[in-house]
Amino acid sequence: MTVVIPAATPMPDTRAPSPAPDMSAWVARRLDQMEHFLRAHLPAHAPAGLGEAMRYAVLDGGKRLRPLLVLATWEAVAAAAEAAPEAPVWWAAGAVELIHAYSLVHDDLPCMDDDVLRRGKPTAHVRFGEAQALLAGDALQALAFEWLSAPDWARRTPALAVALVRELATASGADGMAGGQAIDLAGVGQRLDQAALEDMHRRKTGALLLASVRMGAMAAGADDATLAVLDRYGRALGLAFQVIDDVLDATADTATLGKTAGKDAAADKPTFVSLLGVEPARAYADALLTQALHALGELPTPTARLAALARWVVQRRA
Amino acid sequence: MTVVIPAATPMPDTRAPSPAPDMSAWVARRLDQMEHFLRAHLPAHAPAGLGEAMRYAVLDGGKRLRPLLVLATWEAVAAAAEAAPEAPVWWAAGAVELIHAYSLVHDDLPCMDDDVLRRGKPTAHVRFGEAQALLAGDALQALAFEWLSAPDWARRTPALAVALVRELATASGADGMAGGQAIDLAGVGQRLDQAALEDMHRRKTGALLLASVRMGAMAAGADDATLAVLDRYGRALGLAFQVIDDVLDATADTATLGKTAGKDAAADKPTFVSLLGVEPARAYADALLTQALHALGELPTPTARLAALARWVVQRRA
Repeated sequence: MTVVIPAATPMPDTRAPSPAPDMSAWVARRLDQMEHFLRAHLPAHAPAGLGEAMRYAVLDGGKRLRPLLVLATWEAVAAAAEAAPEAPVWWAAGAVELIHAYSLVHDDLPCMDDDVLRRGKPTAHVRFGEAQALLAGDALQALAFEWLSAPDWARRTPALAVALVRELATASGADGMAGGQAIDLAGVGQRLDQAALEDMHRRKTGALLLASVRMGAMAAGADDATLAVLDRYGRALGLAFQVIDDVLDATADTATLGKTAGKDAAADKPTFVSLLGVEPARAYADALLTQALHALGELPTPTARLAALARWVVQRRA
Repeated sequence: MTVVIPAATPMPDTRAPSPAPDMSAWVARRLDQMEHFLRAHLPAHAPAGLGEAMRYAVLDGGKRLRPLLVLATWEAVAAAAEAAPEAPVWWAAGAVELIHAYSLVHDDLPCMDDDVLRRGKPTAHVRFGEAQALLAGDALQALAFEWLSAPDWARRTPALAVALVRELATASGADGMAGGQAIDLAGVGQRLDQAALEDMHRRKTGALLLASVRMGAMAAGADDATLAVLDRYGRALGLAFQVIDDVLDATADTATLGKTAGKDAAADKPTFVSLLGVEPARAYADALLTQALHALGELPTPTARLAALARWVVQRRA
């Protein structure tokens, strides 16, 4: 297995080293647009503080890797510079982030990981109480599907809207993210082999990252052959993301991560680090990066942004 | 305000008195078909016990009022006897029930109502632990949207699928069910006036009951005028349901309800009973029934099933 050490580290996180200047500007602009979009469309006046809790869980934080993947894939497949405001791809990028945000809120609850710090802020249940955090997560999931079905474009292009709903619902549910979390719960204190660990992460984190790539491509009208190539990119990137997450949990500090470090070992969870060790885990992530970049080479349109995001996933420090 | 005491009490619950024989047979057949549908399509092999928890939360219990409303509305609008197996309306009826079931699982969690009995069985978190119950609820919500987007009919008739997703997502989220629950949480120990209480219930329970009626009508291709009439039926029925729920919580016993009785007063929650008293609350429910039946009178097709379901809602004993 060839291990490639990539040359550049673009990223949405200013703490990571030396981004390519062009990618850095692209990321900054897309993050700004995405934040603006989320701020404009999250409910401002939901009753009894629910809207405030939903906004808290989504705004002002997070790497926004999933929306960036949606947008970068759209640009690669459409071979276009930037989607029009309110185009379907923005709603798709937002919907994926809503699902991600709800999963973090529920994951942090006392009955799950019982965590107090997320994205550098107190977790939602610390700030608003457990019941409100639970409801905010539930409402964010519903809102994700509303964003894929209620805007005007969803009425005008229902086949696209249904495909996006199908993709996101499947990635979020028992065969995807929720199923992965159930395996994760059951796995505490267990010794999983690499195949079982990868199956868990393919569901828990990988499914939504893959869905991000696929939804961006669908919004750009990708054909099946293009989707098949992007699937290989998205799967490799998704697994690499988790391998590096495990490495960072074992090696980075809480202030850098913006979430509690060392949780996996403390909870006796099986990870790529506990299975392989830190350096072999890093080498594995590099090999997955090579796979992701190799898949991109098969696409006819420019994929520099997608390559840069994959490199960032593997070289990030937080 | 005219109060009508309706003549017959059809219902899906064998403990309720003297149903019209024809309606009783219809309900029995639809319940059997619905149970079969849910059993066939709920995941059998989701990982790490998640599928088992999801099935437990949905199967073997519940009045199935929402699916019955979906099916009865479809039959009224289509002026047809029975939908074909696997027709969109079955998926719509199932999806609404999944949302209802997930909301009960989350509502029963210790951080919400902290209840141990539901549908005559231990609640999901008592049976499977809090974390698994939380995940099962999350996965049931995702599955509801998968059922409206992944089957073949959703690809063939995407405009219908998107309309159903929009309806269900809106009814479930911050403007609907989740928002109503947030008001409910905030209202403990408060004195709400009737308008505020009705606003809470319009969201908390009413939105999903109204969505059931609308989704059945949409699946039958209802036009806007028909939907507008059915909206009046659905709103009156939804509010009547909650008024009677409050009456039953105050007057029935736990064994009859299959869930803990007397919870509202114990939790010092504002209810129609605390606001109006038991008998005036019943009279109000009867007046709402009259409104619902009056709306049905404006439809050109037979609506006997919808009338019977509305009567059952007001006259039920559990």
